[in-house]
Amino acid sequence: MGRHLLVNNETLWPFAACAGDDIPALNVLLVKQLPHPCINAMPDKRTIDELIPDMPVGPIDKYRKSATFDWKQMKMFLEGEDCIRYQNEIWDLLEKDPLFARSVGTVSVNEMRMLVFQRVKRLSEYYFLTQEKLLENPMVYLWFFSAIGLYDWALPTKFLLSTQFFGGTIRSSGSKHHLDLADQSDRMELIGSFSLTELSHGSNVKNMRTTATFDPETKDFILNTPDIEATKIWMGNVGKTATHSIVYAQLYTADGKCHGLHMFVVQIRDTKTLLPLPGIMVGDIGHKLGLNGLDNGFLMFNNVRIPRQSLLNKTGDVTSAGKYTTPFLDPEKKFGASLGTLSGGRVGIVSVCAGNLKICVPIAIRYSAARKQFGPTNDKEIPVLEYQLQQWRLIPYLAAMYAIEIFSKQFMKYYLELNIGTLLKSDAVYLAELGKELHAVACSSKPLTSWLARDAIQECREACGGHGYLSVSRFGEIRGDNDANTTYEGDNNVILQQTSNYLLICRENKQNGVQITAPMKTVNFLNDADTILKWKFQATTAVQCYDAAIALAAYKWLVCYQLKESADKLNKESSSGKDGFEARNDSQAYFARSLALMFIEHTVLQWFYDCVNDPAVPPGLAPVLKKLCALYGLWSLEKHMATLYQGGYMSGRDPARLIREAIVQLCRILKDDAVALVDVIAPRDFILNSALGKADGEIYKNIFSSIMKTPKVMERPDWWREFCNKPVQDSLRGKL
Amino acid sequence: MGRHLLVNNETLWPFAACAGDDIPALNVLLVKQLPHPCINAMPDKRTIDELIPDMPVGPIDKYRKSATFDWKQMKMFLEGEDCIRYQNEIWDLLEKDPLFARSVGTVSVNEMRMLVFQRVKRLSEYYFLTQEKLLENPMVYLWFFSAIGLYDWALPTKFLLSTQFFGGTIRSSGSKHHLDLADQSDRMELIGSFSLTELSHGSNVKNMRTTATFDPETKDFILNTPDIEATKIWMGNVGKTATHSIVYAQLYTADGKCHGLHMFVVQIRDTKTLLPLPGIMVGDIGHKLGLNGLDNGFLMFNNVRIPRQSLLNKTGDVTSAGKYTTPFLDPEKKFGASLGTLSGGRVGIVSVCAGNLKICVPIAIRYSAARKQFGPTNDKEIPVLEYQLQQWRLIPYLAAMYAIEIFSKQFMKYYLELNIGTLLKSDAVYLAELGKELHAVACSSKPLTSWLARDAIQECREACGGHGYLSVSRFGEIRGDNDANTTYEGDNNVILQQTSNYLLICRENKQNGVQITAPMKTVNFLNDADTILKWKFQATTAVQCYDAAIALAAYKWLVCYQLKESADKLNKESSSGKDGFEARNDSQAYFARSLALMFIEHTVLQWFYDCVNDPAVPPGLAPVLKKLCALYGLWSLEKHMATLYQGGYMSGRDPARLIREAIVQLCRILKDDAVALVDVIAPRDFILNSALGKADGEIYKNIFSSIMKTPKVMERPDWWREFCNKPVQDSLRGKL
Repeated sequence: MGRHLLVNNETLWPFAACAGDDIPALNVLLVKQLPHPCINAMPDKRTIDELIPDMPVGPIDKYRKSATFDWKQMKMFLEGEDCIRYQNEIWDLLEKDPLFARSVGTVSVNEMRMLVFQRVKRLSEYYFLTQEKLLENPMVYLWFFSAIGLYDWALPTKFLLSTQFFGGTIRSSGSKHHLDLADQSDRMELIGSFSLTELSHGSNVKNMRTTATFDPETKDFILNTPDIEATKIWMGNVGKTATHSIVYAQLYTADGKCHGLHMFVVQIRDTKTLLPLPGIMVGDIGHKLGLNGLDNGFLMFNNVRIPRQSLLNKTGDVTSAGKYTTPFLDPEKKFGASLGTLSGGRVGIVSVCAGNLKICVPIAIRYSAARKQFGPTNDKEIPVLEYQLQQWRLIPYLAAMYAIEIFSKQFMKYYLELNIGTLLKSDAVYLAELGKELHAVACSSKPLTSWLARDAIQECREACGGHGYLSVSRFGEIRGDNDANTTYEGDNNVILQQTSNYLLICRENKQNGVQITAPMKTVNFLNDADTILKWKFQATTAVQCYDAAIALAAYKWLVCYQLKESADKLNKESSSGKDGFEARNDSQAYFARSLALMFIEHTVLQWFYDCVNDPAVPPGLAPVLKKLCALYGLWSLEKHMATLYQGGYMSGRDPARLIREAIVQLCRILKDDAVALVDVIAPRDFILNSALGKADGEIYKNIFSSIMKTPKVMERPDWWREFCNKPVQDSLRGKL
Repeated sequence: MGRHLLVNNETLWPFAACAGDDIPALNVLLVKQLPHPCINAMPDKRTIDELIPDMPVGPIDKYRKSATFDWKQMKMFLEGEDCIRYQNEIWDLLEKDPLFARSVGTVSVNEMRMLVFQRVKRLSEYYFLTQEKLLENPMVYLWFFSAIGLYDWALPTKFLLSTQFFGGTIRSSGSKHHLDLADQSDRMELIGSFSLTELSHGSNVKNMRTTATFDPETKDFILNTPDIEATKIWMGNVGKTATHSIVYAQLYTADGKCHGLHMFVVQIRDTKTLLPLPGIMVGDIGHKLGLNGLDNGFLMFNNVRIPRQSLLNKTGDVTSAGKYTTPFLDPEKKFGASLGTLSGGRVGIVSVCAGNLKICVPIAIRYSAARKQFGPTNDKEIPVLEYQLQQWRLIPYLAAMYAIEIFSKQFMKYYLELNIGTLLKSDAVYLAELGKELHAVACSSKPLTSWLARDAIQECREACGGHGYLSVSRFGEIRGDNDANTTYEGDNNVILQQTSNYLLICRENKQNGVQITAPMKTVNFLNDADTILKWKFQATTAVQCYDAAIALAAYKWLVCYQLKESADKLNKESSSGKDGFEARNDSQAYFARSLALMFIEHTVLQWFYDCVNDPAVPPGLAPVLKKLCALYGLWSLEKHMATLYQGGYMSGRDPARLIREAIVQLCRILKDDAVALVDVIAPRDFILNSALGKADGEIYKNIFSSIMKTPKVMERPDWWREFCNKPVQDSLRGKL
């Protein structure tokens, strides 16, 4: 799909524009270290009530009253006063602004794109994301992104692409003479984009075939698309609105030598008329499975001449005489530097997936609390949330929503620390280690969370039955939008290999006597692999499994076991005569792929466990959080029980029985807290935008009212006369 | 959602209109029994080449040449000459007809509905589905349904609803004075629909709240919707086109007594103007997650008077004096007869899901054969189908496509036999047994196949990367359409309980000394449960697992084990003091629900196994079919390995290792046959309608060409002037 649907080369973003005066502020940030984003101080009750209004009274009150904890306290603890206040202010403004009024009925692709474009401009006018705020607390980046993303994911994507990433990349990869373009982008006088992916190449970026050949006579580069397979495709903004693009092309000098992929900033459309420039074929790739507010496009160059200065020349340049120069000796390193770290996009996607869980789970839980069907007698119906199957289908995703919420914020924090550190050029060895670990975590957490959100959305849709199939439920929209997350910034199955490779290298280093000391500590337990592999499943009752330590221990064993199995498999394939490429490819299914997923599930569980067991957790909140943590752990682990048995960690009838029993029981226990737990996390009704999931729980009134708002709902169709022309049966049958 | 989105009360359909003269023909059918629909005679080569044209030459020829079997022979064997000829003739006509030309770009909901309505009329003119053809071979019903469904699933749904089910139900549930309506429906002079589901009740049909109260003075029924929760909703055709509806309402006599749910045939719109009649509020429920060519609607009655004769009075009537009469003594039986068997809709859905597999799997396999990415060296890229992970993601669904294709046809055959037998009033005891078994198989095969198709579509979409996210891939459309299958005709999780209940009763009967002798033989092996439960996993090499008998034996053990566990669980819950309702509800997760799925997976595998091991299978086809069968079995079984270990069927490291190894190896072996295997099953390009899945394998040309056909693809947007009004950053920021 092109990892560039979203973003590229934002290495140092959101601090790309920081320089000079801002450095001291960043230093302060670094020295004080960012606090845990989900462990927040509790303000006084007046502040809490000011920031968190009461829930409306309605048919699901019964469940709100059955909660074992104070939901406002929980919200304050997990999100913190600053975040709640900031997001409230954004949402208050959007809710008042007619440009952000929710559409009724279906909206055409063209209209969707116009609306998103207008809204991007409006966001620029509101200017929520100031450098000042970012320096005060860099997490504001996430708060902003989520606040408008929960409204519509196409919006922050287009906003950041249009106002931030293009300028940021120019500032970090270009020279002084490029800065004017960055400033114009800031003011939206031009609209930027990134053109990397080609029709026939996505994952394999090195094999891109667009060329930029230097002509020493005219001092121009000639940009060319050799054939349709080299068409640049999938770039956000390029469909309708981009006037400029950063184009990745193979740089050729006049001597015919190829110097590899470089970035060129190219104007593609007139900045007054939006008409394409000569030699440029640019257009829209049309309707997609989601994110249709974003105009993805294609781009072809027919020997287009662009000035020498178009080259973003930090990693390589061509002199006016036509000689290629580069500060890099090793072309591989140059290539790496030119592409930059891709972690940023993946870290962002993890937050998007966390956001999608915050949409689908509240809708399904509230709906299930309000929807009644059947009962012990014909005249006494009970809410479907009372059924074991409904609990078992939904409550684990409620637990996962909490797990991923905590994980994604913590992960974003590490990412921001890495960027601040890089900008300040602090401890290089530490940052290199952090970068590698972060890459491994990003390459597995993007797959885990995008698949989790995918499955959660689908389960929630089905759990809401037919009404969930109405577009006013919003399930269709988020299913389509979330789907992209499994593919862009690297296909899930492909990038999982980056994680397993990292783990295999850790193991090799350890065997060579190097202690594992990773900054985020995700792999440090591998130092004790020999001991851990001797562990056995310990619980003898289901209640013992309510302690997440049981699942956590099983996961540690599982990762150690699977790592050893994967290493053995790779060795076996290699020693059978296969080369490295083949041996790695043939060690994926049931080995390296599973390993990467087990590792990241362990990490998510560990961070969840650490958070809920922190001494700062208010005593009123700890019990329910601990149950959620245990449920997430057991439910994730359940899918790997065959391996736990195979490797001897479990044996006999009991372990599987206890784990499954504990899952079902925890779902039942948490059922009474479920509505309050989604109240903590769900965005307000205006943002959630679901006829099934409104906070008042008046599902039938809300569905009926949504349907009645559809334009022409009770009108006959404009083609009603078609009905009068009756067909004559069999009048057209041929030889049949 | 209302099981009535599709159909209801079609008990005897497609033979509802059979009477008098047709009975002898039906008798012949019954006496000769329908042949196995997937074991067909081989005509001469000339006929084969006439019916099955060669595949176009292109970049995926390499894979076609690597096939180990003759794909035309396979197609002829599985589909048969009659079916291929019949479907070719339909597709030839549609392909020539401009009304069926594929749309380019996005189509509005209104336009989609108009097109589908016009196409329904055109199908009536073509008159493919004649009574004559049906009596010759009832399977023609399935051939017809699939041929037009693969084009667009909304089309056969609306066609059958409009031209068949309404009239059929009137003929089977009404009296002589209703027949005129049925005839009018045949001629499309009126458009019918079925109104059962209400806003607050779907699964629990008994609790519907629409009332029909008899007024002895005027001899009318007064039809009323007491409040918005009783709004009839989800009915196909009601949104825009239905003029009549069969409305389910609680029948009240003047003495205030309720006689339960009855069917009333009611005119809702004027048959000339399509405007609603007085007292009737009818409208469109708007955009859905799929099937938008079908206009689903809502319907409310404000004390609407309808004549006494509106009651479809076969199961109960009201005399003109206002006295209620019924041939049924037991109200429960009356209720059952009034609702009819719902199996028909579910059997149909299984075929729809089989059809969706025939769309998504060919697209992904052909795309993977053509798409190259990476390779052992930078300049030598290989097709992504060569990668172990891609094989492991897709080839099991290829095997499942064959498994479900064979299962769905065989299942439809049994369903047609049941209907013919019922119509002829043949052996009542046998038919009752067949009906119960068919219900159990329908209530589990609808869930299994709709979930399989759901997962297959998603995996295929992801396996095609970004290009799979383009709407021209068709993945979005079939994902949306297929999604309904998990819900309508009964929520998957809810109806699975019907299957587990059936199995638990079988077990109980057996324990009471009654031998199990089910007509389709799906449960007969339970007679040997005691012996089977002593079996252990036998294979000692992966190659041994290439024989599907290994997976089949494991499944027999698994079903017996899970049945015993589920019975024990139910007893435990009951003896803890819970009533039947509660005890059953609390025995679902990991018990009864898993049981029902294991049972149906076993049935699908058994029927696949029986078919591929039939002596009639041509020797050139048997080896590849047997491999597909083994792969389907092992891959399905793999998800249950934890239980196989738990119950002691497996132990130690080897069984899981062998099964997983065999899966990966079978995927690799079948990879060379994969393109030919989808050629056998895939509909022609016009029907498949995917830019990624065309038979020529020219993926880039086809994608590019599809994009270029989009209207206004290279035009600037009509709102381009928006770009000229630049936002002033920070001009609107309030107090933030």
